[in-house]
Amino acid sequence: MSSCWSCAGPSLLVLLSRLCVVLVNFMCFENFEVKEKVIDTAGLLGSSSGLAVVDCSASSETVEILMQAIDLGCCVVLANKKPLTCKIDDYEKLISKFRHIRYESTVGAGLPVIASITRVLASGDPIFRIIGSLSGTLGYVMSELEDGKLFSQVVNAAKGLGYTEPDPRDDLGGMDVARKALILARLLGWRINLDELKVESLYPNELGPSSMSTEEFLTRGLQSLDSYMADKVRGASLKGNVLRYVCVIEGSRCHVGLQELPKDSPLGRLRGSDNVIEIYSRCYKNSPLVIQGAGAGNDTTAAGVLADIIDLQDLFL
Amino acid sequence: MSSCWSCAGPSLLVLLSRLCVVLVNFMCFENFEVKEKVIDTAGLLGSSSGLAVVDCSASSETVEILMQAIDLGCCVVLANKKPLTCKIDDYEKLISKFRHIRYESTVGAGLPVIASITRVLASGDPIFRIIGSLSGTLGYVMSELEDGKLFSQVVNAAKGLGYTEPDPRDDLGGMDVARKALILARLLGWRINLDELKVESLYPNELGPSSMSTEEFLTRGLQSLDSYMADKVRGASLKGNVLRYVCVIEGSRCHVGLQELPKDSPLGRLRGSDNVIEIYSRCYKNSPLVIQGAGAGNDTTAAGVLADIIDLQDLFL
Repeated sequence: MSSCWSCAGPSLLVLLSRLCVVLVNFMCFENFEVKEKVIDTAGLLGSSSGLAVVDCSASSETVEILMQAIDLGCCVVLANKKPLTCKIDDYEKLISKFRHIRYESTVGAGLPVIASITRVLASGDPIFRIIGSLSGTLGYVMSELEDGKLFSQVVNAAKGLGYTEPDPRDDLGGMDVARKALILARLLGWRINLDELKVESLYPNELGPSSMSTEEFLTRGLQSLDSYMADKVRGASLKGNVLRYVCVIEGSRCHVGLQELPKDSPLGRLRGSDNVIEIYSRCYKNSPLVIQGAGAGNDTTAAGVLADIIDLQDLFL
Repeated sequence: MSSCWSCAGPSLLVLLSRLCVVLVNFMCFENFEVKEKVIDTAGLLGSSSGLAVVDCSASSETVEILMQAIDLGCCVVLANKKPLTCKIDDYEKLISKFRHIRYESTVGAGLPVIASITRVLASGDPIFRIIGSLSGTLGYVMSELEDGKLFSQVVNAAKGLGYTEPDPRDDLGGMDVARKALILARLLGWRINLDELKVESLYPNELGPSSMSTEEFLTRGLQSLDSYMADKVRGASLKGNVLRYVCVIEGSRCHVGLQELPKDSPLGRLRGSDNVIEIYSRCYKNSPLVIQGAGAGNDTTAAGVLADIIDLQDLFL
């Protein structure tokens, strides 16, 4: 049953014992009639038996309908990062009823990252640092580079394994990780926008989509970065460190990019495509709270969405 | 504020915005008048504005009052493992309204172990294996042994650091870990009792409290175990493994004791007194969902209790 939640298939209306669920897809936001139907349903069920509107699209056009749903007393569950990374004012309207919105699958898929951070904050334990490897693709790339392989070779292998987007620059640019970092920073109460994050891209502008095709990038473009990346990996290794592509939220800094980390830290030990996040707070000061596991894939994303929906039922007991 | 939750101080009645909280201590179960007052309060507030009864004692005598509170519509929050490890019939009565009871701090203190397992199960993702190092004390002992130190030396050092109970046999016997294992097994739906678990003690009966004093055990008793433990550690090391004191819940087996584990697994890499748990399910099949961090201490235990209370407020929104 769970696999249907991650797809962008037809809209669904599901009846749970105490809560109705409507799964909206991209069509809902393009087709005026469908959109009206969703809003009608939201108005009808939102404040009575309860309705959860589930957005598993990858669209930035859904914020408006989601805000309307919240206003009508509905709950919202998101696998879609875009509504949470919109301008801060819209974000604050969207999360104005904080317990009515859940979005576990936006960071680390089904890994209990949002739920755990929410628990730590709820207990009054202040979080002063988060550092995480939140891209399975870039995690895989960085741990393969550690073994002395060439950047071009590793990225092409990752593409072959289906780990990357069709154009790997969509991963290498870091914007997907930046969106996750922004979601976490805002969860900590930071009033910032996406354009205020420092995001390091693993390819320069000259190798961007406006300058060359995917095919060209995968051959000629990537090869021109091999020696630069090998130098960086070697530099880290000489200090007993490894290179990781991470998000860091600390002090007044929200940064996404390459960082040298101790080999024997949870992030340094990371191999393959797992996600890992280290959370430092008053309770987890010297030794962080660490969550690790598969952070991508249809199954885990779907599981996260489903757990969010079940969790929301507490509001309607 | 949070530190008060972990102590066994006077009873407290706390008013949150939407939920009252009564913190009961051991006195409530010994003093008939106090007990009646708690039940009166439960009857008055349980099904109206909501009341959470919080048990931070270490008593096995609290089950009855907790079951009464649940029957009266109250919620229950536990840091006390005993009510959850009573006979299965009482346990099932206690958790009959599953969303009205929270007990994060019973396993791994504030670490989001119960919350994460509950989420995985709620998503319909079947868990087929749990393995964890759930005693900070035994985690510390096992990782120190790895460095070639003697068992007697390590246990005495752990006692000196305040890591053990006043009589370290209370840790070395494994019953505290067994209670945590039982709580997890029951969370997975296993209908078992504490006496059905296989529990390996790190000291033989001849060195038990009925045979010798704590003082004698710490000197003479422990020393007699040094060569046995050193042999076991060496045996594991020769196979590239390390020795860990773990709970394993898998198939039809719920076992607590020593196990050889690969050096490069999350459990094998564990150093110091952190807890770590690996959860294997359909979604986390080859690479487990791992949660790691401080699993003991007043602050983290209190934080777990407080997060549970805040979480329960969803039932009264």
